[in-house]
Parts: sequence; structure tokens; C-alpha cells
Amino acid sequence: MDIKKIKDPSFLKQMNIDQLDDLADQIRSFLLESVSKTGGHLSSNLGVVELTIALHYCFDAPKDKIFFDVGHQCYTHKILTGRADRMETLRQFHGISGFQKREESIYDCFEAGHSSTSLPFALGMAAGRDLNKEDYFIVPVIGDGSLTSGLSLEALNQIGYQKHKMIIVFNDNNMSISNNVGVLNSNISKLRNSKGYNGFKDNVKNLLKKGKNGEAVIRMIHDVKEKIKGPLIDAGFFDDFGFYYIGPVDGHDIKSLIQAFATAKKKDVPVVVHCITTKGKGYKPAEEDAIGKWHGVSPFDLKTGKPISSVPENEVSYSGMVAKCVEEEMAENKDILAITPAMKYGSELNRLFSRFPERCYDVGIAEDLAVDFACGLSMSGKKPFLSIYSSFLQRAYDQLNHDVARMSLPVVVGIDRASLAGADGATHHGVFDISLLRTLPGIVLCQGKDGEEIADLLHTGFHCDRPFFIRYPKGNLKKWDGRKKTLKIGSWEYLIKKEDPQAIIISYGDPVNRIKKVIDDNDLPFTLVNARFLKPIDEEILAEVLNKGKRIYLYTTDMLKGGLGDDILEFAAAHKIDVIFKAIGIDDAYVGHGSLSQLESSLHIDVRSLFELIENDKAVG
Amino acid sequence: MDIKKIKDPSFLKQMNIDQLDDLADQIRSFLLESVSKTGGHLSSNLGVVELTIALHYCFDAPKDKIFFDVGHQCYTHKILTGRADRMETLRQFHGISGFQKREESIYDCFEAGHSSTSLPFALGMAAGRDLNKEDYFIVPVIGDGSLTSGLSLEALNQIGYQKHKMIIVFNDNNMSISNNVGVLNSNISKLRNSKGYNGFKDNVKNLLKKGKNGEAVIRMIHDVKEKIKGPLIDAGFFDDFGFYYIGPVDGHDIKSLIQAFATAKKKDVPVVVHCITTKGKGYKPAEEDAIGKWHGVSPFDLKTGKPISSVPENEVSYSGMVAKCVEEEMAENKDILAITPAMKYGSELNRLFSRFPERCYDVGIAEDLAVDFACGLSMSGKKPFLSIYSSFLQRAYDQLNHDVARMSLPVVVGIDRASLAGADGATHHGVFDISLLRTLPGIVLCQGKDGEEIADLLHTGFHCDRPFFIRYPKGNLKKWDGRKKTLKIGSWEYLIKKEDPQAIIISYGDPVNRIKKVIDDNDLPFTLVNARFLKPIDEEILAEVLNKGKRIYLYTTDMLKGGLGDDILEFAAAHKIDVIFKAIGIDDAYVGHGSLSQLESSLHIDVRSLFELIENDKAVG
Repeated sequence: MDIKKIKDPSFLKQMNIDQLDDLADQIRSFLLESVSKTGGHLSSNLGVVELTIALHYCFDAPKDKIFFDVGHQCYTHKILTGRADRMETLRQFHGISGFQKREESIYDCFEAGHSSTSLPFALGMAAGRDLNKEDYFIVPVIGDGSLTSGLSLEALNQIGYQKHKMIIVFNDNNMSISNNVGVLNSNISKLRNSKGYNGFKDNVKNLLKKGKNGEAVIRMIHDVKEKIKGPLIDAGFFDDFGFYYIGPVDGHDIKSLIQAFATAKKKDVPVVVHCITTKGKGYKPAEEDAIGKWHGVSPFDLKTGKPISSVPENEVSYSGMVAKCVEEEMAENKDILAITPAMKYGSELNRLFSRFPERCYDVGIAEDLAVDFACGLSMSGKKPFLSIYSSFLQRAYDQLNHDVARMSLPVVVGIDRASLAGADGATHHGVFDISLLRTLPGIVLCQGKDGEEIADLLHTGFHCDRPFFIRYPKGNLKKWDGRKKTLKIGSWEYLIKKEDPQAIIISYGDPVNRIKKVIDDNDLPFTLVNARFLKPIDEEILAEVLNKGKRIYLYTTDMLKGGLGDDILEFAAAHKIDVIFKAIGIDDAYVGHGSLSQLESSLHIDVRSLFELIENDKAVG
Repeated sequence: MDIKKIKDPSFLKQMNIDQLDDLADQIRSFLLESVSKTGGHLSSNLGVVELTIALHYCFDAPKDKIFFDVGHQCYTHKILTGRADRMETLRQFHGISGFQKREESIYDCFEAGHSSTSLPFALGMAAGRDLNKEDYFIVPVIGDGSLTSGLSLEALNQIGYQKHKMIIVFNDNNMSISNNVGVLNSNISKLRNSKGYNGFKDNVKNLLKKGKNGEAVIRMIHDVKEKIKGPLIDAGFFDDFGFYYIGPVDGHDIKSLIQAFATAKKKDVPVVVHCITTKGKGYKPAEEDAIGKWHGVSPFDLKTGKPISSVPENEVSYSGMVAKCVEEEMAENKDILAITPAMKYGSELNRLFSRFPERCYDVGIAEDLAVDFACGLSMSGKKPFLSIYSSFLQRAYDQLNHDVARMSLPVVVGIDRASLAGADGATHHGVFDISLLRTLPGIVLCQGKDGEEIADLLHTGFHCDRPFFIRYPKGNLKKWDGRKKTLKIGSWEYLIKKEDPQAIIISYGDPVNRIKKVIDDNDLPFTLVNARFLKPIDEEILAEVLNKGKRIYLYTTDMLKGGLGDDILEFAAAHKIDVIFKAIGIDDAYVGHGSLSQLESSLHIDVRSLFELIENDKAVG
């Protein structure tokens, strides 16, 4: 059939198992073809093709609510709900989202991008449905990585307590984004390999039949104990939470899935259907991936598995650059440790983990734990480096405030994917962290303009006795290998200093280089300040530039509200300096997905817009 | 012995059980006497007197690290570590803290105030200790309310995985702050009433001895199954996480506790010692308290149990006022639901829960769950009201941003204990929420000056189709019973409008009344604006007052950074209005404990300081 002509999932109901299996093969080929061109989440989507078909076969969306935790595994859902013809626009500017999006389809009843919100939402939806005396199924699909994070565990605890009917589809591929960690996962792992309850019951029956005499009884009881103990302790994870457990089911066997969902639909209590899937199913490089390389991909060649465009020889990603610096620092100081909440691959920490296995920790999708774990390490004299994406750092705000900042613990936090994140869109842009961190008393927050400065700042951080945060964006920068030095905390620098400038531009991070180039190339009469420390700010340089009495322009690609602009205005007000101040940055609204340049130009926050604004002001006078 | 002469816990080692028991009695009397005078946390402290004595008897602090989750149960620890003589200053300005405080004693190796950070810290401390090849015990004490929150569960998962030696003392009183909720608690409850593993083993042995013939075997296996199933599923909670479990132990029996800790010390893996305690032990009103009334108390009469000072006849607490308004709204609209994360008593929601049991939810100490649960409810057409303390709201920042604001879900959030919280100190002041919320696109944030305005704002919130946050402080206000109306979102009001004012004062919440009184009483030439909406702001009134060209004063008792001042300055800059702006509020530092008036005057953020500042500016010209 023509995948692109699918309008809604109703056609599935007429199909037999063979036809559904065929469809799965077609969708898988379509997905591979499509994602190899657009890039996007691959492994997670290949893993749930049959599962998603079975769900839409068994349930009646949009009446029944089928939704996916995080959402990076919803491509088959998008295809079955009439969006195959737009898959070529996936994650592109004005194209369809890489996640569920309510405005995109009536079949997307839920949205996310961050992990572990599906079960709390499901609980609310189910409680609301029951109060409304409505009758439909609520079917969240959640992976094992998301399931063991705190928010999910809290939700399981409440779902088991409130007992509203829902069918939790546990998509167990023994991987979160990269490999899974934690003792719960080893328990699930045992369950994964067991025959489940049905197998257990059969064993007990067989044993009971065999029972004949005293000696045998003892052996038997021993056997029963062993047999019982295994599955009971293992399924105990779900038992503890009071669920009706079905599984494990082969998540690539549509017939078994349909049977399991049919059973689940008959229950009046919360049910877990435990489906075993293979991440990357059907594409060998992805199936064999143990480190998460195929979780999210750029466009690649289907045959070779190689990316279409690669990082140029003389460049390195920001994540890679930071990882390399941290590696050097770790080599010099054995007290430095590294922590990641499940982002080992994304933040390019694999080399670090291989070289210093005993000093590196992946705590799974648990950002709050990562921060407080770092605090504990610092209390025993260690110097932890926590690598975390900006938008996930939000998940640990209370720990950053209540623990790190309030006790002024010397933790170094690398804020990866700071500023706009591109194709992942609204849930992933790292544009809020400055507003969160600049109000925390006593911390240091900085961002480097290039490799040299990033290395210097990191070095400064590892020699700093209070909380130290360093931001760096998605993307690449020029390779740099050199000596590193300590910078004065809170020090800015003039990149261009004119005696009598027409205007003064303040910025931070890579944009200062782009701005400098325009000024240099056009010999413009502007002073340019690199505000590499966002907290504390350089009051000396700031006072100096403010007192020039010239127009001040701030250029940033972060949120304006709560950003560096507020510091500049606060300082000017406190020192009674009249100032004409304008800021380029993100206005008070969420930003969608697209390439960085598309997003920046559509928001009028590209460097070109800065100079247009200045030009315009000049004309106005 | 003279409790006040205790310098450190070393004297305990020389005591026998009888002497330790005597000491427990003495400490309990001392605690009752002391807390009845100062106020503070009572029930939790009465519950752990023997436990704390046994801990300091068995372990060698400060080498061994004994610490308490949250910390509101550390009074006996304070007494045993030489602070009994300062207990009369507890929670008072310049007195000792109601929580652990590192600067207060070398025996306080940890600090908190918010729940569930102890296990993540313990994990970090243990990992650090083992890397350092040091040898000491790490002994976090955690209650059942804190243990079932997500952060603790994540930590248990990692502790079981990393397997660093530590002894978790599980202080199980079957209460968190008020009563406990969640299915895990029912499981723990079964364990609580079981004989534990030892009992289980004896039962199996006895059964094996009895085994004689075929029929008996079947019964026996049935029995074994039942007997095994019980404790295995129950202890399963800890088994799942891979701990060596000891217990349950009577937490008021010092001898048993000492034996249990002695066993625990011999293990090389993470151990849980499950201690059953009675919250409020030894003081009848507190022991019988089921709703959390005796969790934290004001000074009270020991004999009658009645508070020394009570809310005046014509006053009501802000929490009570809001609860009453919500109750009225719930009576009128059956779609309104109420949610609390374990703060039923503190936020005075008991009446609400009694009147509308099926529409009220206590989700336990799980603020992130509370927010996303509210989101799910709103998606099924419900109108959830989430009541949450300002400083705990921080724990759900990501859910507020990623879910509530990004999807613009119509959730009403009551922010209790906004601004300074008084005696609880740095961890409890609600002074950060404005900086967190004002950068969230599309939300509404407001604060009412009195009962009438609070009722109007709440009414407005329940008729608003986007996220609506209303702040209210600790303390009391005049009772008010009247009709309520909808206010225009974003509208400020002039409380005093002078044609040619000498200065313009902007404030919000109750302070506007205090400021108004001073202006009225002294007939001062000031205009006063009530900025009841903190987001969106009233651009019309703001433009009007800014364009007067007069000095603008902002008065707040919240953090200055990221507060309303930034909005005023941003607006003035964007509209090129020169303004002389000064703000009274909390500078960039954490604030300690004390009464509100002591804190305000010591920080120079009381209303008097505002008028002194204005007076001073006038003199300067």
C-alpha cells in the first residue's frame, strides 16, 4: 500500500495479521528511507513499529488516548495518523515536529520532549475521565529509561493508589538513550528473561502434581521457593505498585501484542503490558549500537550507515571540546569526577568513561539525583563535573538552589546545548538557564567565545571554590590545542575598543566572533565587549561603557527576560546612569523547531538584525 | 543529668541501656518544655529521641556521618552534640536553626529543609569516601514520607547499583507531614506489621518439620506460598533496590536499635534498618494527631495543648482565606479540583478534603507529580487548583515550564508562603518564585493586597483559560466575606493618585496597605500603585507613571534580581523613558531565620526603610 496515502488508522481494523506484518515491513522501510534523509530519532522509532500498529489496531484513537512518553518514538504513530506525506519535512522549519504536537493532529493528545511526564499526565487524564463518567482507554507508552526516573516512580505510586483504569505499555528495550543504569533495571532485566506469571503458575501446578512423599516435599518446597522467589521478586517492581501485570510480550509479534492488549482492555484496574522490543530493529547498525549513536541521527547513507556530512577536519563539536578539556583536567587532578544523566553519547563523554571508568558516573534520566549526587561528592572533597543539557538542567532547579547555591558547594556544571537547540524545538532550546541561574546567590555563570576561552573558563572552574556553571551551545567550533590559564572571575574583555564609539555592543559566546567580523570587515565605529561572565558581571567595564553615554546594544540568542540585559539595566539604575539600551534576543514566547539560522532570522535575532537595528537607530538619530 | 551541660555525644558510650533509657526520658521532657516555649517541629522530634541516642551510641560522629533528611527531626541530635543550652533560641533571629546547619556544629555534616536530598547526598559522600579509600560510616536517617518521593527512589536505585556501603536508617512512622499516601506506603505498612525475614525463615523451618504426607503437602505448599508471598512482596520494596534489610525494629527500644545497628555495621553493602517509631511519642495530643497539626507548632501550653497565642477573632490566615475561596468556587463549579503535595494541614485544606473528598488529592511529597497530574486533569476538561508552598514550587520548575506554560494549560496554582517565611529560614523563604515564573511565556502571575482582592483574583483565575498563579504570604489578614468579581488580567490600580507627586511608589500584596497607611497618616505627596499582576504587567499605568518624570520606588520583600523591578526597567528601556528608579527588596544573598519583622528590618527592607530612602533622596535632591 501507499504509506503516504494513509489518512487515519481506521483501515487497520480490516487487516489480518499477515497484512499487519506486511505493513510493519513497509513502514520500517519508509522510516529508514525517510529518516536517513531528514535525520531524527531512529532507533527508538524502529523499535516500536509493530507495537504502534498493534495499538492503533486494538484501540480507537482519538477517542482512546494513545500517547508516547518523551515522544521521540512517535513516527509510526504519525504515519498511521495521516502524516506520512509530511515526514520529509520532519524537524524542519515549518515542517512537522519530531515529537507529538497537539496542533499537528487530533491524534496527538499529549506533548512532551522531556522524559517521564506521560504517567503523571495519564493519571490526571484517568482521574478526570472517571469523574466525568466517560468511558475510553488511556494508553501511555513508556520506555524503561523513562520508567525508572523519579517522576515516573512517583506516578506509579499514585496510579497504584488511586486505581484508575489505564493501560501502561512498557516498551522495554533495555536502553534509555544510551545504555540503562540502576538496580531497578537489573530487576526488570530478570523479568525480561523470565516466562512471567503464566510460566510461574505452570511450574507450581507441575510441582504439586509430582508431590508424593516426605523427602520429595522438602526438595519440592525448595524448588517452589526458588521458582516463586524469582518471578515474585522480579515482577515485584510492578507488584509493589499494585498493577495487573501482563508479559513479557514479544514487542515485534503483532499477534501476541493484540492478544495482550485484548486481555488488558478487560481489566478494571491499572495494567502494565510489558513489551520486549529491540531498539533499532531491522537496521543492523542501529540494532548493534550499544552506546546510543543511533538514538538521534543526522542524515546518513542507508547502505554504509555513514553520515552525509561530517564534522570538518579542523572542527570539533562544543561537547567534544569540553569533554576533551575535562579529560585533561581529570588526568591532572584525580579528584575530578564526571557525571551525566543519561547523556553520555550526546555530550560525547564516552572517551572519558573509557579512560576513567571509576571516576565517571551515568545516573540515568535523573537530573535532580545527578546534582545532589555531585553535592555529596563535593562534600567528601571531590571536584565533580556535571555535564547536562540546558533544557534538562531545569529539572534540577531546586537542587541547584536549595543545595548547590545555598551551601555554595564547589560543583562545576557544564551546560550543554545552551541557547537555541535547532531541530528538537521548543522543549529542547536551552534559553532559560540564564534566568534561572543569575538569581542564585553566589554562583558563577560563564560562556566562552572560542576553544581557548572555553578551556580557560573550565580550568578556572576547576580551581574555583564555589558553584561554577559554564554554558556552551550545540554545534562546532575550531579545534584548539593549547595551554590554559585561570581567568579572573567576573572579568569581561574588550574585543574592540574605540575611543569615541558610535555605539557599544555587548554579547557573549560565539556571537561575539560573528559581530567582530562584521565590525572589522566594515570598519564600523563600534566598541565590542565580550561579557564572558554572566554572573558575576564585570562592573568596572560595564560602568566604563555605560558612562560613555553611547547607545548600548546587547546581542543574545537567549530569552531577553531574566537575561544579561536585566543586569545591565539594574546596574545602570543603581548607579543612576542614563542609558539608551536595546537588546536583541528571544521575546517572551516559545520558539519552535528549525535550523539555527532559520530560527534566528525568523525571530530577527541574527547578527544581521543587530546591525540593521543599529543602522536604523542611527537614521532616527 | 543536666541536659544543658552535654558537650558532645562521647559520654553515651559509657552508659548502659537503663541509663540510655533514662536519658531518653529526660531529653523528651526537655524537648517538650523547650518546643512548647519556642515553637518548632514537635512530633517528628519526639519520635526519634531513642533512635538518635542509639545512633550516637553506635557511631562515632563527626567521623561517622549521621544526618537527617529534611532535618526537622534533628533536635535530639542538636542536644547530644552540645546545643541544648541554645535550644531556647531555636528558630529565632540569631538563634540556632530549626534544621541542621553546617556553620552551627561540626556534627552537622549536611543541610536541608526540603525533602529527599539525604540519599543522593549519601550516595555522593559514600562514592567519594570509597575513592578516597577512607573508612567511616555514612548514616542518613529518612522518614517514610521522604523515602517515597521520586528523588529518594532514584537514589535508592543508584545506591543499590553502585553498592557503596552505607546504613540507611528508615524512620517509619507511617506519616509524612500529615498522613501518607501512595501504594508503596501500603506495602511498607504490611512490612511494618510483619515479623520480617527472620520470622519468615522460622515459619518455613516449622512447616518443613511438619511435612508428612501428600494432602499435607498441598496445604503446606499453599501455606508456604502465602507465608513467602507476604514478606517477599513486602520487603520487595527494598529487595528491588538490592539492599540488605534489617527490621522491622522497635524505634523506641534502644537495646534493639543498638543490636540492629551493630549488625548493620558488619555489612559491606548498603543496608536499610527499618525502625518503627511513633510520631509525637510521649505527648498524647501529638501521638493521637492524624492530620499533622503537631508536625510544626507555635508556642503552646503543655498541659492543655492549646497554642499560647491564637489567630484573633476577626482575622484568618492567608492559607485559610484562600482555602475558603476555593471551597466556594468548588461548590459552584464541579469541575474544580484541589491538589496538594503533602501540605493539607499547612495550607489548611482539611475542610476542602472533608467536603469534597472525591475532588481533592494529596499526592504526597511529589511536587513535580502534583503539577503534571494537574496538567492531565486539565486535559480532561477539569479545572485543577494546585496549592503549593513557594519554596516547594521550585521542585516542579521543569513541569511548570515544559508542560504548564509551554502547552498553556489552564491550571490555577496557589503559591502559599510567598515572600519571607520567617522561622524556617533560608530553605523555606518563598522569594524566588517571581524570578522563576515571570520568564515563562504566556502565564499569569498575581498577588492580592487583601481578602477582597485575593477572592477576586482567585475568581479570575478559575475563569482564565491559561496558566494562572496567585501568590499569598504566611500570616494573617482581616476576615472578609463578600461577593467576588473578575478582574481584568494585567490590570494594576492606583491606591493613591496625586496630580503632581513627589515620587511614585509601586508595590504588591499586603505591603501596599502598610505603605498607604504611612502616606495617608502623614499626608505625603506620593502616588501609590498596586501592581497586583506581576505578569502581565499593566503597561498603561506603568507608562503613565514613568512618563511623570518622577522618582520611581519599588517596594518588595522578594528577591530584587528577576523581580518586578526588571520588568519596570525593561519597559522603560524599550520605550526610551529616562527614569530614576530605586528598589527595596532582597539583595543577591540567602536570608536566614527570624521573625518577619526582624528579617525585614535587619535587611533594611521594611516599610520604614522605604520612607527613609525616599527622605534621604529628597535631601540629596
